[in-house]
Amino acid sequence: MSRSSSNPATRGGSVTLVTVAARAGVSAQTVSNALNNPDLLRTETLERVRRAIDETGYRPRRAAQTLRTRSSRLIGYGVRPVQAGKSTPVMDRFLHALSQAAESADYRVLLFATSSEEGGLRGYEELIDEHDVDGFVLSDNGERIDPRHAWLAQSRVPFVSFGRTWSKRQLGDWVDVDGASGTDTAVEHLIALGHHKIAFLGWPRGSGVGDDRANGWRRAMARHGLVTRGRRAESEEDLEAARQSACSLLDKGATAVVAASDTLALGCYRALRDRQAEAGRDVSVIGFDNSPISEMLSPPLTTIAQPVERVAHECIRLLLARIENPSKPPEQILLEPTILVRQSVSQPML
Amino acid sequence: MSRSSSNPATRGGSVTLVTVAARAGVSAQTVSNALNNPDLLRTETLERVRRAIDETGYRPRRAAQTLRTRSSRLIGYGVRPVQAGKSTPVMDRFLHALSQAAESADYRVLLFATSSEEGGLRGYEELIDEHDVDGFVLSDNGERIDPRHAWLAQSRVPFVSFGRTWSKRQLGDWVDVDGASGTDTAVEHLIALGHHKIAFLGWPRGSGVGDDRANGWRRAMARHGLVTRGRRAESEEDLEAARQSACSLLDKGATAVVAASDTLALGCYRALRDRQAEAGRDVSVIGFDNSPISEMLSPPLTTIAQPVERVAHECIRLLLARIENPSKPPEQILLEPTILVRQSVSQPML
Repeated sequence: MSRSSSNPATRGGSVTLVTVAARAGVSAQTVSNALNNPDLLRTETLERVRRAIDETGYRPRRAAQTLRTRSSRLIGYGVRPVQAGKSTPVMDRFLHALSQAAESADYRVLLFATSSEEGGLRGYEELIDEHDVDGFVLSDNGERIDPRHAWLAQSRVPFVSFGRTWSKRQLGDWVDVDGASGTDTAVEHLIALGHHKIAFLGWPRGSGVGDDRANGWRRAMARHGLVTRGRRAESEEDLEAARQSACSLLDKGATAVVAASDTLALGCYRALRDRQAEAGRDVSVIGFDNSPISEMLSPPLTTIAQPVERVAHECIRLLLARIENPSKPPEQILLEPTILVRQSVSQPML
Repeated sequence: MSRSSSNPATRGGSVTLVTVAARAGVSAQTVSNALNNPDLLRTETLERVRRAIDETGYRPRRAAQTLRTRSSRLIGYGVRPVQAGKSTPVMDRFLHALSQAAESADYRVLLFATSSEEGGLRGYEELIDEHDVDGFVLSDNGERIDPRHAWLAQSRVPFVSFGRTWSKRQLGDWVDVDGASGTDTAVEHLIALGHHKIAFLGWPRGSGVGDDRANGWRRAMARHGLVTRGRRAESEEDLEAARQSACSLLDKGATAVVAASDTLALGCYRALRDRQAEAGRDVSVIGFDNSPISEMLSPPLTTIAQPVERVAHECIRLLLARIENPSKPPEQILLEPTILVRQSVSQPML
């Protein structure tokens, strides 16, 4: 009895390179050589592998497909350094969803570590140059100018972005989440509970994502004829800075705070605790991103969640359409976030 | 003046496939075809690309290397689904560090989404079969039996694990962090401050990682002749369950709690707040993993940090040595974690 019958590779009836290797009693690399570079092998070994291929009925899948289409079936994705203490709440979920969406279309995701040097372009070049990737998924934008877009467009390399570039001129396909709609929904939720003094704790002006989230708050307030003057404060993505900025909003009598991120919302929790008040009981607080911390806070934080799995799925769909037809007009998809209501929100105190 | 002079690809003097494409006014894919499949191109296009190659002095790097070594220079890495609300504090940092370590050795990381079906083996097969990966990095173990190890070893596929399998028989190379040493250090830190009633809040018995962390606490207590009976409680990785388990430890008069994770430590914070006590002031608390939440808690949590970047670096080093020499004896590296002292720890109240 050969080893291959107890090999998981034969489960489900599919015959793979590993099945062949087990049958022939050689490594997978040797089978690969037999197929692609037979002159590297001794005649005896080659004969053994060929017999195993015949016996198992193995047909190399990717190799055959690549020859036909000249496609590597690889999609490049750059991973940025994670700073200590800075969480990337959305990115790890996005990466799994992206791998899964790619695989359902018979593609794989090839990672590379990006740095800020040369706008991070070096890694993109190398992936094209060395691994023949068919295209790229970009993320982690939020800048007004992203040199990667212009460069990839000029180099005629297919790409899709998770996130807009926020410049007037849109190069290429993108999928994004409507941040303004998210904060608009947050304001509507608070107004329905009876709040009028609704403040916004945002990032400093100038970031595309941050300004978008601020705009949703402003337009919802305007729609209801509510005052926004003196109800906006700014903070970097830092707990202590957020605490201080939140204080000024509370000083001016806000009964509710919509924050541009869960970290800023936590800063607001701190500012409330400083004055022996509590989120949800004394002042309502809504965050953004549904990061792992949001559920663990006390009280658990009401927050705006991005549909990360759908973003990944749409990214792959647009990218494959672009690879198929490089000259089609750009396509852009804006998805709606949803509000997750937890205990940090209640009716205003009278 | 040709476009290539303003192209980032020519910065730093290195000539890439994209440089050639820009010079020839064609796509990168066309240049790739000119090199690998010239009969797909029109004579005129081929001539134009060849001229650009001559003018730029371009030498295809990976292609040449692959022909020489039959290596794809790809390393497979499986990404598990991220459950909502469950953070993977270490994994996103690990993934960036892994990409970086691979790239410094001229390798790339190829992702695939794993599922629990068939022990997740399907993805591994496909990567070998379709993309000729040179080896795998495994992580996310902590189980006593991991079917991937036996299968990869039997299939003669090079692999290295971040994490032991915790079975007696060790298959293959691994890099791990000494969890027992981490909790041992935590106990020593507390004893130096004057604590004797030091409890351990751990996961239910049976997980390799969890039992290892419990063992470090137990051996340090034994070394100092301190009582462990009645000082251990168990909880799943869940905030409310951890809060309840922590209560029993506090009821029995523990002045300090070492937890197997930052989530369990946060459960302990909650149990303290229920009785109007506070971590750091009334009872000392130490977590494990230095997750993003640990710094954001109030007070910030003292925790045990894993040297994630070094783990990634050693994983790549061992894997490349294994690819080089498949029959060398297994190598195993145990790295020391470090304690990050924050405000959740103080001298015991008298």
